[in-house]
Amino acid sequence: RVNGDRLWDSLMEMAKIGPGIAGGNNRQTLTDADAEGRSLFKKWCDAAGMTMGVDKMGTMFATRPGTDPDALPVYVGSHLDTQPTGGKYDGVLGVLAALEVVRSMNDLGIRTKHPIVVTNWANEEGARFAPAMLASGVFAGVHSLDYAYGRKDPEGKTYGDELKRIGWLGEEEVGARKMHAYFEYHIEQGPILEAEEKQIGVVTHCQGLWWLEFTLSGKEAHTGSTPMNMRVNAGLAMSRIVEMVQTVAMENQPGAVGGVGQVFFSPNSRNVLPGKVVFTVDIRTPDLEKLNAMRARIEKEAAAICETLGVGCSVEAVGHFDPVTFDPVLVERVRSAADRLGYSHMNIISGAGHDACWAAKVAPATMVMCPCVGGLSHNEAEDISKDWAAAGCDVLFHAVLETAEI
Amino acid sequence: RVNGDRLWDSLMEMAKIGPGIAGGNNRQTLTDADAEGRSLFKKWCDAAGMTMGVDKMGTMFATRPGTDPDALPVYVGSHLDTQPTGGKYDGVLGVLAALEVVRSMNDLGIRTKHPIVVTNWANEEGARFAPAMLASGVFAGVHSLDYAYGRKDPEGKTYGDELKRIGWLGEEEVGARKMHAYFEYHIEQGPILEAEEKQIGVVTHCQGLWWLEFTLSGKEAHTGSTPMNMRVNAGLAMSRIVEMVQTVAMENQPGAVGGVGQVFFSPNSRNVLPGKVVFTVDIRTPDLEKLNAMRARIEKEAAAICETLGVGCSVEAVGHFDPVTFDPVLVERVRSAADRLGYSHMNIISGAGHDACWAAKVAPATMVMCPCVGGLSHNEAEDISKDWAAAGCDVLFHAVLETAEI
Ligand SMILES: NC(=O)NCCC(=O)O
Ligand SMILES: NC(=O)NCCC(=O)O
Repeated sequence: RVNGDRLWDSLMEMAKIGPGIAGGNNRQTLTDADAEGRSLFKKWCDAAGMTMGVDKMGTMFATRPGTDPDALPVYVGSHLDTQPTGGKYDGVLGVLAALEVVRSMNDLGIRTKHPIVVTNWANEEGARFAPAMLASGVFAGVHSLDYAYGRKDPEGKTYGDELKRIGWLGEEEVGARKMHAYFEYHIEQGPILEAEEKQIGVVTHCQGLWWLEFTLSGKEAHTGSTPMNMRVNAGLAMSRIVEMVQTVAMENQPGAVGGVGQVFFSPNSRNVLPGKVVFTVDIRTPDLEKLNAMRARIEKEAAAICETLGVGCSVEAVGHFDPVTFDPVLVERVRSAADRLGYSHMNIISGAGHDACWAAKVAPATMVMCPCVGGLSHNEAEDISKDWAAAGCDVLFHAVLETAEI
Repeated sequence: RVNGDRLWDSLMEMAKIGPGIAGGNNRQTLTDADAEGRSLFKKWCDAAGMTMGVDKMGTMFATRPGTDPDALPVYVGSHLDTQPTGGKYDGVLGVLAALEVVRSMNDLGIRTKHPIVVTNWANEEGARFAPAMLASGVFAGVHSLDYAYGRKDPEGKTYGDELKRIGWLGEEEVGARKMHAYFEYHIEQGPILEAEEKQIGVVTHCQGLWWLEFTLSGKEAHTGSTPMNMRVNAGLAMSRIVEMVQTVAMENQPGAVGGVGQVFFSPNSRNVLPGKVVFTVDIRTPDLEKLNAMRARIEKEAAAICETLGVGCSVEAVGHFDPVTFDPVLVERVRSAADRLGYSHMNIISGAGHDACWAAKVAPATMVMCPCVGGLSHNEAEDISKDWAAAGCDVLFHAVLETAEI
């Protein structure tokens, strides 16, 4: 078993960097706080005897050598970046648990045939730079490096410039590394494991996603002196689209979700009808056909809503992944590890996207999940127990050991 | 007749300060651009032989003395502040036309019994600091000075601090001045005069307003891993309220309007259901009873919408004025001046709020309006012709002269 106290202490230590406003974290990608978190992580990796490599996306790879010079490494990781009002565990648990796996191997004097690479993927959240899982996406060949470098935050700063600015632009070609396998441990971010009273989620699939960014153009006009019949109201169109997305998601139950998290009104003045409204629709389901049908329906109905109101409507897909099926052999290793360790478990489909989803394109991959209180995530109040954290880390340890071969 | 070319030149000169991004202006209240605009205006007033007084709200009063030391002044003005994406004429026309009235009197060697005070009211727009018409509201005793000083912009900066910062905090007690009459010339900001092909709007009334700021609290949660039935979606509630406000306005035709210009999602991240949504509803109608009934209905239906979704809902009135009836004697003076000058005219109800609405509480007051292209205002593309500007200024000149007595 791993050292649950040490894992917990490291989580608490990391949480001091980029504190939020309500007990959580604001350590968004490529901010100064992100740089500080990276330095602490590097210090820990150095102390555990690992060598750090950094690629041109800023992803960090800390290697513990294996005994067979020809064996490809087993990668284990997640991300240290957070939402603007994020929790202390989303992503961080997966990186620090991977570190704990290596620390425990060191304690126990275990050598593995395959090297172990503890990985901190850059920009998993996509909060500052869409899309999410950007660095793992470039790694898997889904996005080009140029595309990634050109992504802009709401202030117009680019990923490429900010990566240089914080000093974490590496030399390695992105995706040059070959993986024997990829493991990621993550909090569920949903309510199922807690409700079912299971310690471990054996993650068999991940649902697919579309992020559709709508740009609606209305006629900027005075809210008081513009008669109702002369309005070209982009805000009203946006509201109807939000309601329609809700309807589409509800009509695709079970298993589908849809919502809007980000809205920008322009000029955003109380007495001006917005000339421009930009917002992002997030839809997901594990069923590929359903996912694409939902997208098509939403785009079609949004166009009709806008046409009725005379509002201009353009849509750009700013994030996408197909549903993922994880590697059955690795999934079975997670399940049998949980059995062996005596932890309760169940199969689960990941509701959120993870770097594992892109890694699965280039290597056998899977995930381990633990419950989180009230299913709450992307919220500073996100919470887990020390025991939950340790149980998942034990399972990760065993599954990684079996894969890396002693 | 006034000098229409000179008026137009001054308008174009002022428009150079705080340029917008699309040909209009961004000279918001108490910004550096506002300070610069004020300095230019003061320079012009000095050159026209007037003496400048500034009150504790930052309102500027430039006095041209009268011949009777006991006669109260006739005030003529509007505002130099603009929307974030505002036009070159909204407010500015009224201030510079008042200046042109004085310049024309100087040219013609006209002395009046009553002094003339050219007035630039502070924070008319309310875009940066709600409510609109803040300084004239304090002048009229509607708001306290403390209330006004404490108003905050979206960054949390207060009116009081910003007024000091830009160096336009005056010494005069607000509202200490007594007015013989108040005139304000303004673009219509609506489509009626242009559609009816009238040069002059004789403004008999101004519709009343409520600004209702809603703060909705939902549960910040992951857009992907939170099942539809576990969501407490403040953004969905907001959307339903926008639609409901539209319905309420449509059911109160003719003459009522309602809309939402400002929306803040928090944390405003693509994959986070908003924990908080703040937005402002703007409703108006010339009928007091209808106005208050609309407000009551909107608050009641909003509460029901939020209750259904489990969303917390609080409402604060951040702006309000009752419908105004302007002084019949002054209104008649405007009408007969237009007749005398041979300008086409019609009665009109102001759709927007104006400083004249608060001035009407403490003195006989009225307004003159000119058309604007397409009824467009609160838009950088706001436009008027030089002839329209001059015609209204002529009418203002005559009505002011008659009131100030030669
Ligand atoms: N795990 C996680 O929250 N990832 C961010 C991408 C997503 O929205 O699913
Ligand atoms: N004239 C004008 O646009 N005033 C701002 C206050 C309002 O919204 O009516």
